[in-house]
Amino acid sequence: MASKGSLKTPKGTRDWVGGDLHLRDHIFTVLERHGGVPLDTPVFELRSVLSEKYGEESRLIYNLEDQGGEACSLRYDLTVPFARWLSMRSDVQHIKRYQIAKVYRRDQPAISRGRLREFYQCDFDIAGVFDPMIPDAEILCIIAEVFEAFQIGVTVKLNHRKILDGMFEVAGVPKDKIRTTSSAVDKLDKAPWDEVRKELLDKGLSEEVADRVGTYVRRSGSMREMLDNLRLDSELGANKFLMEGLADMELLASYLEAMNVVDKVSFDLSLARGLDYYTGLIYEVVVLPDPANPATLQVGSIAAGGRYDELVGMYGRRPLPCVGISFGVDRIFTLLDARRKKKSGSDLTNQAEVYIMAFGGKEFDGLLLERMRVARQLWAAGIRAEFAAKVKPKPLQQFNASEGVPVAVMLGQEELDAGQVRVKQLHGGDKNAASKDKGQLVPRENLVEEVRKLLASIQLEQE
Amino acid sequence: MASKGSLKTPKGTRDWVGGDLHLRDHIFTVLERHGGVPLDTPVFELRSVLSEKYGEESRLIYNLEDQGGEACSLRYDLTVPFARWLSMRSDVQHIKRYQIAKVYRRDQPAISRGRLREFYQCDFDIAGVFDPMIPDAEILCIIAEVFEAFQIGVTVKLNHRKILDGMFEVAGVPKDKIRTTSSAVDKLDKAPWDEVRKELLDKGLSEEVADRVGTYVRRSGSMREMLDNLRLDSELGANKFLMEGLADMELLASYLEAMNVVDKVSFDLSLARGLDYYTGLIYEVVVLPDPANPATLQVGSIAAGGRYDELVGMYGRRPLPCVGISFGVDRIFTLLDARRKKKSGSDLTNQAEVYIMAFGGKEFDGLLLERMRVARQLWAAGIRAEFAAKVKPKPLQQFNASEGVPVAVMLGQEELDAGQVRVKQLHGGDKNAASKDKGQLVPRENLVEEVRKLLASIQLEQE
Repeated sequence: MASKGSLKTPKGTRDWVGGDLHLRDHIFTVLERHGGVPLDTPVFELRSVLSEKYGEESRLIYNLEDQGGEACSLRYDLTVPFARWLSMRSDVQHIKRYQIAKVYRRDQPAISRGRLREFYQCDFDIAGVFDPMIPDAEILCIIAEVFEAFQIGVTVKLNHRKILDGMFEVAGVPKDKIRTTSSAVDKLDKAPWDEVRKELLDKGLSEEVADRVGTYVRRSGSMREMLDNLRLDSELGANKFLMEGLADMELLASYLEAMNVVDKVSFDLSLARGLDYYTGLIYEVVVLPDPANPATLQVGSIAAGGRYDELVGMYGRRPLPCVGISFGVDRIFTLLDARRKKKSGSDLTNQAEVYIMAFGGKEFDGLLLERMRVARQLWAAGIRAEFAAKVKPKPLQQFNASEGVPVAVMLGQEELDAGQVRVKQLHGGDKNAASKDKGQLVPRENLVEEVRKLLASIQLEQE
Repeated sequence: MASKGSLKTPKGTRDWVGGDLHLRDHIFTVLERHGGVPLDTPVFELRSVLSEKYGEESRLIYNLEDQGGEACSLRYDLTVPFARWLSMRSDVQHIKRYQIAKVYRRDQPAISRGRLREFYQCDFDIAGVFDPMIPDAEILCIIAEVFEAFQIGVTVKLNHRKILDGMFEVAGVPKDKIRTTSSAVDKLDKAPWDEVRKELLDKGLSEEVADRVGTYVRRSGSMREMLDNLRLDSELGANKFLMEGLADMELLASYLEAMNVVDKVSFDLSLARGLDYYTGLIYEVVVLPDPANPATLQVGSIAAGGRYDELVGMYGRRPLPCVGISFGVDRIFTLLDARRKKKSGSDLTNQAEVYIMAFGGKEFDGLLLERMRVARQLWAAGIRAEFAAKVKPKPLQQFNASEGVPVAVMLGQEELDAGQVRVKQLHGGDKNAASKDKGQLVPRENLVEEVRKLLASIQLEQE
């Protein structure tokens, strides 16, 4: 038997209940609008499928115990399982797929900031050979639409791996130090330049090279500003890699203008992204600080992604270019929760549309079977209905239980004998008990129709 | 790098894609109608939370590797995590909760019959102190509604732990052999009586006792038939336990009659259910064999559950009676898949409502930016829209890609210069290219409105 002390979820995990889970529907609506097909993969993969995909971060992978059989690990993200699936499904030449699922990292948890060991990601990716930057632009459009739906103000920071690597080359960073330089520079959103510079020197860059890196990467601004700025730099213009990246970004700017999302993005030369598999455009979505919601100050990045054209090919069957985005669902929940908690306290509010009650005098038997008949009829009509699970419920019990439910169906023996029931709009909790409004008498056989009418009129009132 | 041979999902697991995942919405609709609140718990629990809950079956539990920290295991079902959650949330006195999630069993997989190592369960449970059998009746009503929604014919086999144990007592089964007798009897749906009888003798019952057990349990029929039958047996009538169970079943029969689901159930005295934690009513849902769908012959039980009044109390904080049902989602998918595959071959059909095309003569530049503007406008209006991710797509490419999409928006430079676009109903694939119907010219600014109108009229046509 479990002792009292151990009655908890494992470290870095949590339960989700009620309204929080319905928030995900906002994301799905947007993703399906863009032709997303849902995919669901196993929570664990063969260990070989995950290996050599995450670089240094691999040490955070959870393994299953060796109980005889295959070596398996819990998934670390949704991108690698998608690439594995694409490699297996050679009949799929192009697809837009989305997946919402939990991923696992044995990291130090920080629950208040939404950093957990088990957390939800929601990924949308476009795989296939297309003309440059068209799918990339659609992904950025999706990002804008998702956060518009949640009414969360964001900026999408953009950069391009080829521009970044080109700049490092021009600055004089040796080829074998490009990835480590990149990961140091990525910290500029949290650390001051002095600290990053020190890390670059520790990693073996000369002061001169480090300072040139610093001049290049500490620049950000609108797409057009930054493009003009980079075009003017003749030293950078000599780097082939960088010019390829710039051409991509020019194209992207025109697409984002056409889609009217260019004002959501910022071209930020310090953005680098940790994972090795990105090959082109990269992006990270940060929340705009909102003083009315302190959670916006803590949460930081809430979505990120980029283009990864070589990951599918790593499984040795075929190459397939991909671009995608991962939404950090738990962090989005943390933000919305902080906003929502101000409005309603409970995570378990009653969602019923109709509460079925019965009343009577001394001889009152509770009319349970009749309440059941009515419930079944309403359920069959698709109406969310409840009744007290008591043989003889008291009036006040029934009114209290109907808190938050908009409509009551009221049964009494006399009315039933006359083939009638009462339908009444409720106004919250025990206030109803005192109310003199007895509702409307309607023929028993018109019940569903009358309930629907009343629900529709209440809906209209509230709009 | 993964070798080609290992490019697969782990044994007993599979990927789900496309339409299959949308099938779950049918279940959710029913469960929310009954006031279900969604709950989501971690995929792994502290090992101590799972221990001593599953009897013999514990050996099938998956453990996480010991990488320092707490001992954790993948969940085995959704009932025990729910009980753990109820123990922790002492503010919750009663709740209807549902959860759909994957559970894990290191069993021998048999994929064609829908038996996997990772599989979906969807649970609906009612926790709280209520008058007897009212929540139990609602659960049976939910079962009926879910399978009505899926148009799957089922029978719900019912029994009661107290009736079962009482019968065994009357038959002379020693107290310490009641659970093993029960699990042998549970096999009667798959094995002939002779085999079960042999197992009982092996377990140490005398021939006489085994035969009396056989006489009792090999009976099933409608609720009323079986209740009358049991009431007539004076020997059984002397057993207190059994009489309590019978009283429950009488009550249940009247409730099921009121809810009009009594014809879906069969009272089956051989039903025992393997898990230890059941204390009252138990049930198992079996598919009615349908010669037109061979999967119905293989799948067997597709949902099961019962009352477990003591599980929450096992965590030492408070008792809380519960009753619930687990739907075997993968087996339901297997059934529906077999039916659906006859209709449509692919699991990746296009769900878009509008395909945006562009056409032009020699100087045609593809009108990509204009296609993007239109797409963004339709997306913002909540319409599922797609366009070719090509700068200059060919007409036939666009028609082929629009296969299955009901409406096209067609752009041409001339029309755009006059502030117009074409809106056209599609009839499937390249047949459209040959069609002489050029659609309707509408003002660019009325586009969303005109698309909505056309979609609505197509919808009406199809109903």
